[in-house]
Amino acid sequence: MTALEQLIEALKRLPGVGQKSAQRMAYHLLQHDRDGARAIAQALAAAASQVRLCERCHTFSEAPVCEICSDTRRDASLLCVVETPADQAALERSGSFQGYYFVLQGRLSPLDGQSTQAIGAQQLLARAAEPAVQEVILATSFTAEGEATAHVLGEALRARGIKATRLARGVPVGSELEYVDLGTIAHALVDRR
Amino acid sequence: MTALEQLIEALKRLPGVGQKSAQRMAYHLLQHDRDGARAIAQALAAAASQVRLCERCHTFSEAPVCEICSDTRRDASLLCVVETPADQAALERSGSFQGYYFVLQGRLSPLDGQSTQAIGAQQLLARAAEPAVQEVILATSFTAEGEATAHVLGEALRARGIKATRLARGVPVGSELEYVDLGTIAHALVDRR
Ligand SMILES: [Zn+2]
Ligand SMILES: [Zn+2]
Repeated sequence: MTALEQLIEALKRLPGVGQKSAQRMAYHLLQHDRDGARAIAQALAAAASQVRLCERCHTFSEAPVCEICSDTRRDASLLCVVETPADQAALERSGSFQGYYFVLQGRLSPLDGQSTQAIGAQQLLARAAEPAVQEVILATSFTAEGEATAHVLGEALRARGIKATRLARGVPVGSELEYVDLGTIAHALVDRR
Repeated sequence: MTALEQLIEALKRLPGVGQKSAQRMAYHLLQHDRDGARAIAQALAAAASQVRLCERCHTFSEAPVCEICSDTRRDASLLCVVETPADQAALERSGSFQGYYFVLQGRLSPLDGQSTQAIGAQQLLARAAEPAVQEVILATSFTAEGEATAHVLGEALRARGIKATRLARGVPVGSELEYVDLGTIAHALVDRR
């Protein structure tokens, strides 16, 4: 394979990018934006080596503990559980939540071997058991797998005497939290049940 | 900016990639495919430094002269002029052209300062003046700018006594050659006028 063919193959690893898009991207960069190609290469290598998971909430972070977890002015009585760093970022952008987060490693998907263990349920239960936590808000997606994840985690939390709530159904059913508009997210937070 | 934010900014330099897509790509690579991130970084850096333009036809090539230009079994009487390496690749995939190519540096766009000089018209006229060339097929896009480019180049070629033809109108008007199906391209080549 030539360097151009290798580049097209590599770009196909990006989500949502097929042969046509990969080719268009490669040709564009080589013909019009070689500085861009080098900038993207550098940013990818830097992020792949520098971005780690926050020890406390498991979102992306370059420091051992992320900025939010390091912020002592937030409401320690509320812990919001999300599926991905993207969901956490969407909630944070809504500006309607002042507590702390816990980011799962995805959602339950027994068929894909995503067990409660694999998504970090043990760490969540340990985090939720800290005395300051009064309520855990389960903000997993309103998809079948997200609902199942919320159900299983909710049961486990309540069995340990921890209050567990769910975002209200203001969030459109079947959608990924990351793509929901901010107003809907804010509303769903207020109406949590 | 964090390494993650820098990565999202960098990915937005890819054509067709906005804030949302860039974020989705960055999150996907960091959460599920760090090897992919490193592979793309490496392929981009390699391509940016290794891929050059063929000295003879100006398409992408790692060698000073590309494979097609180095192939002496092709029909030296036909020279096909295209706007981009992507168009050249589309024509080659159609399997209906056995001559050689000349890749312009884009198309005439006086408002953007793309002059005949800038797109490589001088080099084309020199290449077309080689004794073996009997016909130059102008396969620029059927857009206003592509038509203007074909018109100007056709005039210049004919003024030098060189036969210049245009792909037939089998190619849908207003479309980019790169995205045209192979059968249409083959038909348009046969019907060239
Ligand atoms: Zn954190
Ligand atoms: Zn060549």
